Amino acid sequence: MTTMSTGAVLVLGGARSGKSRFAEGLVLGTGLSRHYLATGRAWDDEMQARIDKHREDRGPLWNTIEEPLDIVSTLEVIDGPANVVLVDCLTLWVTNLMMDEGRDLRAEFERLKAHAATARARIVFVSNEVGLGIVPENRMAREFRDHAGRLHQMIAEVANEVYFVAAGLPLKMKG
Amino acid sequence: MTTMSTGAVLVLGGARSGKSRFAEGLVLGTGLSRHYLATGRAWDDEMQARIDKHREDRGPLWNTIEEPLDIVSTLEVIDGPANVVLVDCLTLWVTNLMMDEGRDLRAEFERLKAHAATARARIVFVSNEVGLGIVPENRMAREFRDHAGRLHQMIAEVANEVYFVAAGLPLKMKG
Amino acid sequence: MTTMSTGAVLVLGGARSGKSRFAEGLVLGTGLSRHYLATGRAWDDEMQARIDKHREDRGPLWNTIEEPLDIVSTLEVIDGPANVVLVDCLTLWVTNLMMDEGRDLRAEFERLKAHAATARARIVFVSNEVGLGIVPENRMAREFRDHAGRLHQMIAEVANEVYFVAAGLPLKMKG
Repeated sequence: MTTMSTGAVLVLGGARSGKSRFAEGLVLGTGLSRHYLATGRAWDDEMQARIDKHREDRGPLWNTIEEPLDIVSTLEVIDGPANVVLVDCLTLWVTNLMMDEGRDLRAEFERLKAHAATARARIVFVSNEVGLGIVPENRMAREFRDHAGRLHQMIAEVANEVYFVAAGLPLKMKG
Repeated sequence: MTTMSTGAVLVLGGARSGKSRFAEGLVLGTGLSRHYLATGRAWDDEMQARIDKHREDRGPLWNTIEEPLDIVSTLEVIDGPANVVLVDCLTLWVTNLMMDEGRDLRAEFERLKAHAATARARIVFVSNEVGLGIVPENRMAREFRDHAGRLHQMIAEVANEVYFVAAGLPLKMKG
Repeated sequence: MTTMSTGAVLVLGGARSGKSRFAEGLVLGTGLSRHYLATGRAWDDEMQARIDKHREDRGPLWNTIEEPLDIVSTLEVIDGPANVVLVDCLTLWVTNLMMDEGRDLRAEFERLKAHAATARARIVFVSNEVGLGIVPENRMAREFRDHAGRLHQMIAEVANEVYFVAAGLPLKMKG
């Protein structure tokens, strides 16, 4: 088990790479009061069932918060040295911001970066690396991966640790 | 030349990353009796020509076996301490299983994992990492990358060594 | 700041991974006379504006050369021990070669590899890793990622250093 240092951590990985499970292990290792900030939205019953299943798997020792958009405000409310927060995941947050007309994504990213740099709670951010395939033909998909890539760079800059997870195995990129 | 330890090895990489060549080097380094388990199917003459060319390139010291589906049964037949097997590749196996109606992929994966954990022959599994691009719009493609990601985690768990290959260069993730 | 050794360097990364900024840092660290070889073509005013903005951002101490196709000839002209060249990027070069009918890409790649192996100037090649997503349905896209993957292996073979950049963080693969 890798032990998590103080400050923010970024866990990047592909689809079904085991990144969330690795991030959960980091959270458990802290011994702090656990909060799970889910950015995913239940679009249908199947998605809701999956979310419920994940919550059940994590067990009763987690405080689960669902917030698709205003995650910085949520993080501010639970910011304290006795807390650890798992934010799962940043890429869904980016998607939600893009769907919510009129959002200034740069400003949102800066606000999250500023919070991550100074938070008293420990925060583990999980996110999908999506920029290692062919350039998507769809314009929205291209914009999405540009936003995601920029956000990863910003959070990695202030994070104390950054991991890249593949096949369930973490590779330490920073820290 | 990296020397291969005992047990199973997983070599992950992208398209044209040099993963198969790296895996072949691991096999040659063992000095054991070489078996090549090809999971790819020749759909047309062009594909058949490519398979024949690869076989010729490997030379006569390899025993080549073509098995698109029941690779565990094949591995059981050639399981012995004097043998080393290159399985090329797991992602094609997943594709073949998905095309073969009625297969229980979870059960197939568990069976392969159990074999890999206890095999007396050395086995080098080659597979494509496919989860680092944008979420595919095609449902089958999404299911495929979910299956592939899960299988990679399962094999990595029991493998003694795991490599990620890019630009022909191996990065050791485990071992 | 990572210091660059003599010889060629390959910097691989995904979209918006921070690879170009990392490569620029390597170039600045050499203290040599800086050349920027841009392989991108301005297809429209928006692209031209972006190119102009990048050039302005780099500042007046860079000699910018735009060459979409014959980059080896260009590199030969500026080959000297007082120079460092940033080639940004190889994937655009591959695209341009594919669009330019009748080009023998293997021969072009061999010529670039031979130059990189013996150049007196230091050269930093930036390129997109594009082979870690789902197999593209588009045939041209499949050919493109095959070409890119082969070129990366060839340049990595003669490079003194190879980096994989994610979230702005470099991972040394070679050197």
